[in-house]
Amino acid sequence: MQKTLIALAILSATAAHADEGMWMPQQLPQVAKQLKAAGLKLDPATLTKLTEFPMGAIVSLGGCSASFVSPQGLVATNHHCVYGSVAHNSTPERDLLANGFLAHNLGEELPAAPGSRIFVTKAVTNVSKEVVTAEVAKLSGKKRSDAIEKNIKAIQASCEQDAGHRCTVSSYYGGLEYYLIKQLEIRDVRLVHAPPAGVGKFGGDTDNWMWPRHTGDYGFYRAYVSKDGKAADYSKDNVPYIPQHYLKLAKEGSKEGDFVMVLGYPGRTNRHRLPSEVAFTFDWSYPAFVKSSAESLAIIADTTKDNKDTALKYASQVASINNYYKNRQGMLDSYAGSDMLKRKTAEHEALKTWINANPARKAEYAGDIELVEKLIAQRDAETQRDYFLSSSKPRLMNTARMLYRLANENTKPDAERKVGYQVRDVPRIKASVAALVRNYDEKVDQALVMNSLSKYAAQPAAQRSAAFDAVIGIKDGMSKADLQAALEKLYAGSKLGDAAERTNWIGKTPEEFKASTDAFIQAAVALYEPGMKEEAEEEELGGKLQQAYANYMKAKIAFMQSKGQAVYPDANSTLRVTFGKIAGRDHGADGTTWKAFTTVAGVAAKATGEGEFNAPKAQLAAIKAKDFGKYVDPILKSVPVAYLATLDITGGNSGSAALNAKGEWIGLAFDGTLDSIISDWDFNKANTRDIQVDLRYILWNMKHVDHADNLLKEMNAE
Amino acid sequence: MQKTLIALAILSATAAHADEGMWMPQQLPQVAKQLKAAGLKLDPATLTKLTEFPMGAIVSLGGCSASFVSPQGLVATNHHCVYGSVAHNSTPERDLLANGFLAHNLGEELPAAPGSRIFVTKAVTNVSKEVVTAEVAKLSGKKRSDAIEKNIKAIQASCEQDAGHRCTVSSYYGGLEYYLIKQLEIRDVRLVHAPPAGVGKFGGDTDNWMWPRHTGDYGFYRAYVSKDGKAADYSKDNVPYIPQHYLKLAKEGSKEGDFVMVLGYPGRTNRHRLPSEVAFTFDWSYPAFVKSSAESLAIIADTTKDNKDTALKYASQVASINNYYKNRQGMLDSYAGSDMLKRKTAEHEALKTWINANPARKAEYAGDIELVEKLIAQRDAETQRDYFLSSSKPRLMNTARMLYRLANENTKPDAERKVGYQVRDVPRIKASVAALVRNYDEKVDQALVMNSLSKYAAQPAAQRSAAFDAVIGIKDGMSKADLQAALEKLYAGSKLGDAAERTNWIGKTPEEFKASTDAFIQAAVALYEPGMKEEAEEEELGGKLQQAYANYMKAKIAFMQSKGQAVYPDANSTLRVTFGKIAGRDHGADGTTWKAFTTVAGVAAKATGEGEFNAPKAQLAAIKAKDFGKYVDPILKSVPVAYLATLDITGGNSGSAALNAKGEWIGLAFDGTLDSIISDWDFNKANTRDIQVDLRYILWNMKHVDHADNLLKEMNAE
Repeated sequence: MQKTLIALAILSATAAHADEGMWMPQQLPQVAKQLKAAGLKLDPATLTKLTEFPMGAIVSLGGCSASFVSPQGLVATNHHCVYGSVAHNSTPERDLLANGFLAHNLGEELPAAPGSRIFVTKAVTNVSKEVVTAEVAKLSGKKRSDAIEKNIKAIQASCEQDAGHRCTVSSYYGGLEYYLIKQLEIRDVRLVHAPPAGVGKFGGDTDNWMWPRHTGDYGFYRAYVSKDGKAADYSKDNVPYIPQHYLKLAKEGSKEGDFVMVLGYPGRTNRHRLPSEVAFTFDWSYPAFVKSSAESLAIIADTTKDNKDTALKYASQVASINNYYKNRQGMLDSYAGSDMLKRKTAEHEALKTWINANPARKAEYAGDIELVEKLIAQRDAETQRDYFLSSSKPRLMNTARMLYRLANENTKPDAERKVGYQVRDVPRIKASVAALVRNYDEKVDQALVMNSLSKYAAQPAAQRSAAFDAVIGIKDGMSKADLQAALEKLYAGSKLGDAAERTNWIGKTPEEFKASTDAFIQAAVALYEPGMKEEAEEEELGGKLQQAYANYMKAKIAFMQSKGQAVYPDANSTLRVTFGKIAGRDHGADGTTWKAFTTVAGVAAKATGEGEFNAPKAQLAAIKAKDFGKYVDPILKSVPVAYLATLDITGGNSGSAALNAKGEWIGLAFDGTLDSIISDWDFNKANTRDIQVDLRYILWNMKHVDHADNLLKEMNAE
Repeated sequence: MQKTLIALAILSATAAHADEGMWMPQQLPQVAKQLKAAGLKLDPATLTKLTEFPMGAIVSLGGCSASFVSPQGLVATNHHCVYGSVAHNSTPERDLLANGFLAHNLGEELPAAPGSRIFVTKAVTNVSKEVVTAEVAKLSGKKRSDAIEKNIKAIQASCEQDAGHRCTVSSYYGGLEYYLIKQLEIRDVRLVHAPPAGVGKFGGDTDNWMWPRHTGDYGFYRAYVSKDGKAADYSKDNVPYIPQHYLKLAKEGSKEGDFVMVLGYPGRTNRHRLPSEVAFTFDWSYPAFVKSSAESLAIIADTTKDNKDTALKYASQVASINNYYKNRQGMLDSYAGSDMLKRKTAEHEALKTWINANPARKAEYAGDIELVEKLIAQRDAETQRDYFLSSSKPRLMNTARMLYRLANENTKPDAERKVGYQVRDVPRIKASVAALVRNYDEKVDQALVMNSLSKYAAQPAAQRSAAFDAVIGIKDGMSKADLQAALEKLYAGSKLGDAAERTNWIGKTPEEFKASTDAFIQAAVALYEPGMKEEAEEEELGGKLQQAYANYMKAKIAFMQSKGQAVYPDANSTLRVTFGKIAGRDHGADGTTWKAFTTVAGVAAKATGEGEFNAPKAQLAAIKAKDFGKYVDPILKSVPVAYLATLDITGGNSGSAALNAKGEWIGLAFDGTLDSIISDWDFNKANTRDIQVDLRYILWNMKHVDHADNLLKEMNAE
């Protein structure tokens, strides 16, 4: 079955647009013709080899993409991908976010935020038959979920026998295929350089998802390993990791029309979704998200306004909320003006007509198509019911829940423990428990929870969770003041705000938890059994859904193939390649055309000396003096800042290296335009442009403004 | 001499760019070739006839331009030109600024703000020889000033024998020529229609001077006269004025590349200024203005923030300050990046070289060139010295000064009275004294004065005015608190805040003023003699300057002619014609190109539902529903909102009609782009674009949103 699917994808790929497609590296030889036509000078086959150049230089930060750019493990990514680490190292007295950071030597490099990782993909293996074995294929519901989970854990565990590696089985085509991804997991990550926020976040939320763009969205980490070259926890004795490959800087600048490809880890697309999923997302889920995001932003702004320290703690979360807020609202705007649902519905109807037109197809697919719709409706109803509940839990209560779950899972043999609570997960849990101190404030947390909790409590009892009501003390018709008092009592009754106290609970027994008088620990114990029951119900649904959805995808792929249409898997945070060209757009904002490049002249024009447009004085002086050095573009007569390209990227691609036709490094992908992001659901060739920061701007700024000569030398940029 | 100059202008005009030039109507036949080449279908000679079509339809509002657009005296202009009248009729309960206003019949029309006028130009006559007679040419200093003023007054008085007319002698080419402009002065002006601020001021100060633009900057007045067709004060019995001509609406929409001309009253340009004037303006005057404007805006915002009524009173002033603030800052930015001063200096040096190369020329011009520089330096020094003094006078003190001056002038025969205080001026003075109640608040005024006064008082005594110090009670080293107390005492001691009290002083004798105990009246009396002395000194300087400057301009014109370069007079608020084409621009904001048109799609995209981008719900609904009717553009597939044209306009052109090649109405000029306005000093062909609101947007909004069917019918738009 799997071989057929790969073949399908290959066959249909030839029909796809040059700019559309997040290709699995192994698919690339099959689009060799398009790659060559687009201008690639490398042999496409070289791009399939994960441990050779250039793919060997491409890494994941978990959520962001990045690349090795020197033989000493220097990693280039976006400023917004190192933002958390800059914030982590910032204090009101030493505000690295505002002022930027440059380590002049290895000794000055700072530990990245706890939990920071660099993942180097070593191998990708199709394990579909090992996950959904002949036996599993016969199962349904929770039994199917459990069996799939068991197989995945076994495959991962076997793979992770190779110490220092993280192995992940990822689902493709809605559970129709599974691949094992083996990654070296570098745990000692250090912050090397980030420009001031006035460069790295220039334009802020105003310019986010916008063109023209002038954000210098770059930053540098370094990967460290033990002296014997193994992944290791932070240690002074660790040494820079020597990557097998690193990117070479382009010798010539880019220009409009040039071939460009982006290598990275796109997070998630939803191009194969059912019409009911589209409707639920755009009619309920995204609008609800937008509303609650606006509330959260206002609450955080209000509760941190007089405390720079707290504001810094929440800076990263605020940036993230703002980012998704604008993203979702942008998609809602695109959706409102589109015929997407109508078209998806018509396509789905056509699929059903095609299935029903043939008795064999009808027998194979019709039942599951009907079932998947029913299961999705059930899932959506539960999501709506529990909407306020999920955001009504204090963050430390969630931490307590995780810790208690860990204690319970620890009583089982490792292989039987729940995914996420195995021995391999403990370091990540420890890191996340420790990290909390850096981005948590009780007052802010309580205000956020209270906002949600008051809406939760106002719902009829049938929509509420009796167990959670009991924990908080919620009763029908409870006054807001009483609710607030109950919440305050809960917070006051816990010592988990203390980092040592939290960490101390890792490794304790369930009995010790049960004996605790800590309010959040007690809550975790009280909510455990009801939670396990819910989880079992979810797994029952999940098992049914996996089976039905995979069969729906199989039908859809067969149907698309019958029409000669492209099929490549939706993005799932695994390594992909997309290619196209550098290109402006005739339709920009109303009344404008978008050129392909912006320049530093635009930085000076937007600079206000404050807020989101606070370009550093030294930078403005260099622009005014036309101190451009060798980074001036011969056509633009200025230093290019950012450019548009016709590539198919999404969240997770942030920090991805952009390479030219020769495979040389020319920039970093960091954003798409607001009317591009609907492509996550429905690829729009006319609108879609990704935004990349030009390497020449990065180097110019490092050379002429921040004087990062040590790094330029290391990257062989001099 | 004058004939020669006109000939010069004509000759050199042929060398000018099609887009540059604010042509006096009588000059147009001399650019007939360019007009035809640009696409004009009318005979250029028809444009010279002020009382025929289309020039007969063009009027001035004094500061703004406008046009008759119906046979019943309906006048179209910009929203920002009727803004004061909308504010005047607004109350917190009935906020016409926010909600817009539409009179459904004549009876619902509202009186415009006091002092509102519609001027219909009837004749323009060269009176240079009657102003600077052979006798005057021999005079210098104050004697020359007085003689010129006397001659001008006599010419104006003779002309104004025709009742209901206002006659003005205007200076051209820096006093080298004078023209008598005879205008019918319509005094009963009524507000007919203004869209909500969410349309008429859409984009607010953020978008002001910007492209892409989506401001529906239009509004309508109606001219009223007595039943026998004469200009008259407001009366219920007045009837709509029947203009000789009114504009016909274009039958077809415009498109990029179309010929367009703008007819209106540009206020002031400075293209013939000396390098020293350029330097003083850009190095001192504009920076000082920008600084004080920012302070004034902050003070008004602060003192009106809790009082909607007061905020409404100052809305018009705030809009005006913001407008000039951005204008001046924009010019400063353009200047900073330009070689303008260097070039102007080189040109001036070349002029001097040319003069000195020929003994006759040297004899005629060299002395005056040197003199004019000296006189300008003297004027600049006095301006700097008195900078804080001029803004340190309470507004009611200035009113008192005007009233006392009027009383003194009234003791003389009318012909001998100072310009501005003759019988002809009294209605305007009365109107301005009455109008004050609508845009004055003592608390705001005192805060603005205190800001300036504290800076004034901190200057050394030599830089201060002893008379003014005595009036306020200023002493060296006075504390701010004492100064504040003195100022408060002054305000408290006057009853001029009362409208009846103010009006009551019109017609009183100087003796009655001297006997008054009103603090501001006393101040006016105390400052009168020192003020007259200063005025005499200014007139001495002015007389010298007029003579020398006129001779400098004569030399400059001759020099430019010797190089075959264009000479047309700088703008001076008199009727001009400029022509060019509708055109986008390759270099927009960095990273963008400007298209020629914006559309209603951009209104929806910018709309936020609040503040400056508060598009009305009904309008957004019409856009969403694509309820475009016949106003949809065939190329844009939407309703055009605004367009760019290559015309040479400036402040005062606001509200000017834009006509197509057939002389049909296609839009209203309302703005220029920020990098165009430096053209007031130094025409920049590459950058200069004016912004016009497309007539189709006006009509669409009136039809589909505001349902102004009565006006559409009246304009024959149905």
